Amino acid sequence: MTHRFTLERRIEFADTDMAGIVHFANFFRYMESAEHAFFRSLGFVLHEQAAGNVRGFARVHADCDYLRPLHYPDLVRIELLVREKTASSLAYDFVFFDERGGERPVARGSLKVVHVARGPQDDRLRTAPMPKEVFERIAVAPNP
Amino acid sequence: MTHRFTLERRIEFADTDMAGIVHFANFFRYMESAEHAFFRSLGFVLHEQAAGNVRGFARVHADCDYLRPLHYPDLVRIELLVREKTASSLAYDFVFFDERGGERPVARGSLKVVHVARGPQDDRLRTAPMPKEVFERIAVAPNP
Amino acid sequence: MTHRFTLERRIEFADTDMAGIVHFANFFRYMESAEHAFFRSLGFVLHEQAAGNVRGFARVHADCDYLRPLHYPDLVRIELLVREKTASSLAYDFVFFDERGGERPVARGSLKVVHVARGPQDDRLRTAPMPKEVFERIAVAPNP
Amino acid sequence: MTHRFTLERRIEFADTDMAGIVHFANFFRYMESAEHAFFRSLGFVLHEQAAGNVRGFARVHADCDYLRPLHYPDLVRIELLVREKTASSLAYDFVFFDERGGERPVARGSLKVVHVARGPQDDRLRTAPMPKEVFERIAVAPNP
Repeated sequence: MTHRFTLERRIEFADTDMAGIVHFANFFRYMESAEHAFFRSLGFVLHEQAAGNVRGFARVHADCDYLRPLHYPDLVRIELLVREKTASSLAYDFVFFDERGGERPVARGSLKVVHVARGPQDDRLRTAPMPKEVFERIAVAPNP
Repeated sequence: MTHRFTLERRIEFADTDMAGIVHFANFFRYMESAEHAFFRSLGFVLHEQAAGNVRGFARVHADCDYLRPLHYPDLVRIELLVREKTASSLAYDFVFFDERGGERPVARGSLKVVHVARGPQDDRLRTAPMPKEVFERIAVAPNP
Repeated sequence: MTHRFTLERRIEFADTDMAGIVHFANFFRYMESAEHAFFRSLGFVLHEQAAGNVRGFARVHADCDYLRPLHYPDLVRIELLVREKTASSLAYDFVFFDERGGERPVARGSLKVVHVARGPQDDRLRTAPMPKEVFERIAVAPNP
Repeated sequence: MTHRFTLERRIEFADTDMAGIVHFANFFRYMESAEHAFFRSLGFVLHEQAAGNVRGFARVHADCDYLRPLHYPDLVRIELLVREKTASSLAYDFVFFDERGGERPVARGSLKVVHVARGPQDDRLRTAPMPKEVFERIAVAPNP
């Protein structure tokens, strides 16, 4: 069972804005990419879609506190920690670090996601328990 | 029948990059937004998706020549001209103007799109004639 | 003095993801576009940059609760309410509505921003009081 | 001297649109990320900005032909080939491959870029020769 994951990614030029730093909305894309890479590291695909069947995790909450800016062309390190788990939901905390700040974080954020699914006859996604093998591989991080 | 359309939109802060100007890939989003607004002006929706049925226009070619940069928070005017039409395809030319340059264009681009559709049993989108009422409302622009 | 603003904007095709709905990170771009339009409605530009001088509002916090999905090609209505004001900071609440849900909101979010500035000789943006004419035009919303 | 570079990157969920495939404008972001990685592989930074000095490569032309769609969560391989070089400009061809198509390309594109620079006293970016060490490391690909 796993409750943490670290993703390193390169800040891209297209992620910046005219203030010369990474646009604040992109931190949410970075959190999501860490979440997808976490699933991939466990052998799962976060969102599956084929022949009218869809399953994945819908976002119900997202937040971020920006402590310092992120700059092109730095590497950013994103640490994911699983904070809550129910049969159909997960909550993660994220801490961002860059090469300039050492152990001083750049930002802290969180996501809460709910497992949803839809069959070929359904008109919309509905909350559903996550696959058993996913539930069993993901643990909640111990309190710090 | 119509062969031209003009869209005015506001440059958003998030569209810029650290060079202080609109990121070049966003010109393609602007062209697409003009194309969608053109369809809306004719009473159509460019992309329709419901109950396993999908129809829309897949992009097969896109290009842009950048003559001058676009700046936040300017208004940009995008002129769309229909250049080609077949039973299942359209090609558009686009010219971009801003408030600073008068009649000197900021950029020129083009899109070529093919009408595609998929039923609930299909595994993928396939080329298909566009709806008759769309075909009949859209004309090819006269040569300049 | 003003403490509220409403922006209506069209959901664009490029704002969606493969789940068929607006990608969650774009709600933060929509909040920011409402904030910029709020400033424009007061006769101000939120971010100014010329000849080595920069002034604007850096984001220090952002959050969003997603209640229902947003769909292309709907109109979304974003209501901005000023919740806090100091000499150098503002906090806003946002409520999102679409055409399908009537008075049931689609999402609720907030931003906290700090006024920052930099002169030609400065190496980085620093917190600074917002321009007096901005401070005087913006009020805090009465408690609901 | 080098005239080619290959970048592999993961398709991200946020790169898709409601048609279930990578949005066409993102192919241009992918080309740009391959170009930046090419420069990094040579020990250079494509865009530099400090203390009022800016230098980088402005885009003057971009195009893409879309042969097949790209899907989340595939790996995409982007092959960059230098096609033209002058004292102040470069032109690249790009070919995209995915894991599904083997040696059948997904897309082909190109970028033409011009080296530009600005000092602290300048009002705008102007065409300028690229740094000598960059010019000397980049070669034009032999004709196929």
